[in-house]
Amino acid sequence: MNDYNPPLREIKFALDFFGELPRIAALPGYEAATPDLIDSILAEAAKIAAGVLAPLNHTGDLDGAKLTERGVRTTPGWSEAWSTLIEGGWNGLSFPEELGGMNLPQVLNLAVQEMWHSANMAFALCPMLTQGAANAIALYGSEDQRSRFLPKMVSGEWTGTMNLTESLAGSDLAAVRTRAVPEGNHFRVSGQKIFITYGDHDLTDNIIHMVLARVPGAPAGVKGISLFIVPKVLSDGTANDVKCVSLEHKLGIHGSPTAVLAFGEAGGAIGELVGDRGRGLEYMFAMMNHARLDVGLQGLAIAERAYQQARSYARARKQGRPVGWTGDGVGIVEHPDVRRMLMEMKSRIEAMRGLLYQVAAAHDVARAHPDPEARAAARRRVGLLTPIAKGWCTESGIEIASLGMQIHGGMGYIEETGAAQHWRDSRITTIYEGTTGIQANDLVGRKVIRDGGAVASDLIGSIAGEGRALAGGPLAMEGTALVRAADAALQAVRVLLEGGTTDPRLPYAGAVPFLHLMGTLVGGHALIRGAAAANAEADSGNDDPWWTARIGLARFYSTHVLPQVAARLTAVTEGAAAVFAFDEALL
Amino acid sequence: MNDYNPPLREIKFALDFFGELPRIAALPGYEAATPDLIDSILAEAAKIAAGVLAPLNHTGDLDGAKLTERGVRTTPGWSEAWSTLIEGGWNGLSFPEELGGMNLPQVLNLAVQEMWHSANMAFALCPMLTQGAANAIALYGSEDQRSRFLPKMVSGEWTGTMNLTESLAGSDLAAVRTRAVPEGNHFRVSGQKIFITYGDHDLTDNIIHMVLARVPGAPAGVKGISLFIVPKVLSDGTANDVKCVSLEHKLGIHGSPTAVLAFGEAGGAIGELVGDRGRGLEYMFAMMNHARLDVGLQGLAIAERAYQQARSYARARKQGRPVGWTGDGVGIVEHPDVRRMLMEMKSRIEAMRGLLYQVAAAHDVARAHPDPEARAAARRRVGLLTPIAKGWCTESGIEIASLGMQIHGGMGYIEETGAAQHWRDSRITTIYEGTTGIQANDLVGRKVIRDGGAVASDLIGSIAGEGRALAGGPLAMEGTALVRAADAALQAVRVLLEGGTTDPRLPYAGAVPFLHLMGTLVGGHALIRGAAAANAEADSGNDDPWWTARIGLARFYSTHVLPQVAARLTAVTEGAAAVFAFDEALL
Repeated sequence: MNDYNPPLREIKFALDFFGELPRIAALPGYEAATPDLIDSILAEAAKIAAGVLAPLNHTGDLDGAKLTERGVRTTPGWSEAWSTLIEGGWNGLSFPEELGGMNLPQVLNLAVQEMWHSANMAFALCPMLTQGAANAIALYGSEDQRSRFLPKMVSGEWTGTMNLTESLAGSDLAAVRTRAVPEGNHFRVSGQKIFITYGDHDLTDNIIHMVLARVPGAPAGVKGISLFIVPKVLSDGTANDVKCVSLEHKLGIHGSPTAVLAFGEAGGAIGELVGDRGRGLEYMFAMMNHARLDVGLQGLAIAERAYQQARSYARARKQGRPVGWTGDGVGIVEHPDVRRMLMEMKSRIEAMRGLLYQVAAAHDVARAHPDPEARAAARRRVGLLTPIAKGWCTESGIEIASLGMQIHGGMGYIEETGAAQHWRDSRITTIYEGTTGIQANDLVGRKVIRDGGAVASDLIGSIAGEGRALAGGPLAMEGTALVRAADAALQAVRVLLEGGTTDPRLPYAGAVPFLHLMGTLVGGHALIRGAAAANAEADSGNDDPWWTARIGLARFYSTHVLPQVAARLTAVTEGAAAVFAFDEALL
Repeated sequence: MNDYNPPLREIKFALDFFGELPRIAALPGYEAATPDLIDSILAEAAKIAAGVLAPLNHTGDLDGAKLTERGVRTTPGWSEAWSTLIEGGWNGLSFPEELGGMNLPQVLNLAVQEMWHSANMAFALCPMLTQGAANAIALYGSEDQRSRFLPKMVSGEWTGTMNLTESLAGSDLAAVRTRAVPEGNHFRVSGQKIFITYGDHDLTDNIIHMVLARVPGAPAGVKGISLFIVPKVLSDGTANDVKCVSLEHKLGIHGSPTAVLAFGEAGGAIGELVGDRGRGLEYMFAMMNHARLDVGLQGLAIAERAYQQARSYARARKQGRPVGWTGDGVGIVEHPDVRRMLMEMKSRIEAMRGLLYQVAAAHDVARAHPDPEARAAARRRVGLLTPIAKGWCTESGIEIASLGMQIHGGMGYIEETGAAQHWRDSRITTIYEGTTGIQANDLVGRKVIRDGGAVASDLIGSIAGEGRALAGGPLAMEGTALVRAADAALQAVRVLLEGGTTDPRLPYAGAVPFLHLMGTLVGGHALIRGAAAANAEADSGNDDPWWTARIGLARFYSTHVLPQVAARLTAVTEGAAAVFAFDEALL
């Protein structure tokens, strides 16, 4: 019932159509990405996801990571699974060949990560964080640091972590207090970091911690924060002064150890500076676009897993006779409301997939396109779409996992069924790597207001244009819905730009509704583009019903989901002031 | 941080204004309900809820009910808490005096139950189920049965359960297989029931199980099901043949034992028939309106608890400097998006409260009004509003509990914080006593289509009229939003009535969106009525800011929540056919 079957057809469609993989693979540097290699990578990743990682997902929930006297012990089976990833070189997919990587496009790596996360999100956090830490060193480390740390991180012999949060510095990293005192060629790091994913574990011999800390005398606030490499084990094989003090008892992702790490309890952990002093936060933020896209991907991935389980259950479970059904006993999938829930899950999943693969492809263009103008345009697209992808896909993922439970009825509430685990696991995604509120503030402040709405209006305008072009054709209804949604989005942008002039709080009071509005719009755009492609297939004589379903999904989404854009608009326009209708003491 | 402070002012307002308690208390039979008694009952209930039940809520989550060799052991402290309820006669609040009750209005009992559920929902299920079982015997039992069972159930010396579900008979009770074979004056009952709330426990010496079963030779389907009383302990003090086989391992409400009960493993449990053979389901359904209102109340209650905890956290937690804030360090409550979330929680909570207290009051009118026309009208109102109250308040409760976690950021995901428990606990409410889909089918089929939309159109029409009457006044904006929502609701009713003639599935494919639409509308109506009352207070010179906040809540809801009505409309109208856009094999 709770197997994971990688949806390879949907993933390949997303790769080729939304990710434009053929175009990406033709960019300089991506010569390795031949169609044959891509197919074999996807097939092999699917095998590992379904056969190795997915069976360990429920195990990880029941027998999660534990702190023992000898450090953190991961779930039985985790270690062998990690070895499988090392053996296949999976962590190095998108890293350069000189570091032991395969130099393949990000968008292809996204497809592989989607499968890891669907199969076992708690496990997949480890490769995700390791790739993130390795990226930081690749981008900002010295040549010497790159050569000492990256080969083993890219291979997966060592893992990596991000040490940002402290108990008084969560969303506000300016408040970081961890200290790094210079001593000869290195620094002595001391302080306590919390919420460190895979902060300790028994999968590898070493863990490379990327730590935000302050050098004495550094300016207060953001500009005084630097980034340090603090390995768990030093190059001479001795243990560094970093200790896992405790693991958090979490609602979900029990398989993922969330550590409290104490640095410097015995005199100071030895760390080395990355890049320039005082630029730590800047380096972290530069990598944020990747990390946030990865978390948005988790929203999609867990929704897909929850959907597959609910669909199996709905086909197998017989209960009552569906309205209008005249045949024999049949699965509850034929009950109108169960079908409605499955359609909602599926259509929103494909909408998310369309968005996420577009953003990953834009990363590739931004990295590899020979034309600097094209690179810059892709960077702007990444900047705008990342907070939407993160915020909207994670919020959607939770709602979809909840629908998955609902389809199970009473059985959904029983832990053995496994549907509840997806819901619990999904709930972290709107919180870590910046809450939905933080994403929305980034979207409204840095991505819309800062450039006077230029990039956003450009995107929305082109969506509206595509919608108008559908008039009179078979997707006229969907086109009208898209144009209506795009018009609402344009209006919201205008109000955000004007609103801040009367009261600087107003754009931010409407920020999350605006984020939802934009997510719903771009997701709908993706589905309707898919439906148009399906019509083109039909016109060319292809009668494969898989394509017909693309049209049905777009129709469902246009009538059940897209109309929410207008509802969100009111919250942005008339509703922002209402947030401050009275003093908080009256709440 | 996780205390519960009963919101007595809001509850009293809901009782008097939405529940029209002064008018209810004047009905024949409710003479006991004097203003002084009501005040002292509310004050005492608040004390018990805050001081006795609430502190046990997290304990119940951590150390839930367990099956031991000597039967089910409840959470430490549960037994003493139950004794407190017995001593105060709390279970008998709305039962007749001749049964040891206090003969007070249902709407007042609702207020007390709200506090129990907010304080400790897992615990409060026990009085809720006991009152339900006692009601069944009071309504359909013989005089002899009433006298043997009710006094001890009303006092709380014994508890009661509802035994409906079997593994193949969940939403479809027609599939019940448990058998009851006549033997002299009684029956021998055998079969297995699942999901039995408080099916076994150590709070009382006896448990009265109300069991649906079939007598041999009874017709297949619904008409062959009868209702039986099967006590855990027989009148001669010997144990009946009923055994708790296991307890479910659930996502939440760990303090509430959810039992699998085996009847008749040693020859047949002794049971007695209630009322007439073959009318078991009819009796159960007659009580459904109460049970469903109670579960809707849980949605409100847990939302209130989650809200209080999030509000405390948002006031205490300092993080970053809110946009536009120039003063000293301040709680995150001043961050625009945190404030938005609290406003959304609070406004939706008060909308739910308004709806639920109206329905409870309609129960009282239906029971006690001297005019049969008034009683019938109240019954129709109860019939229409019950599935809305159940479905919409529970779905809203989960969303609000989720917002409560979100406000806590990373801490929300840590179980010790307690915010996650509310979310886990709340998740059962859209499932038991009929899923949201079942509520929506009831609403659309029995409450709208069956009478040609008469009762629904009447209600919607009067709401529209009230909205129009606000034109030109201080609530003109809210009035316009209300009229727009009411117009959408009327249109939805028309489409539901017509839709079934082309395809019987269509009204049911749009049923849940319609339920949400109606809930959002009637909730908004309640808030806007409250705002109008606040304006009247202001006009009469009352400058208490509590009243001003009523207006702010209505304004927020009108711009952030009420516009969703139009989005749901499209799902009912154009969207119903899209649910069946393609064959399920393509999902």
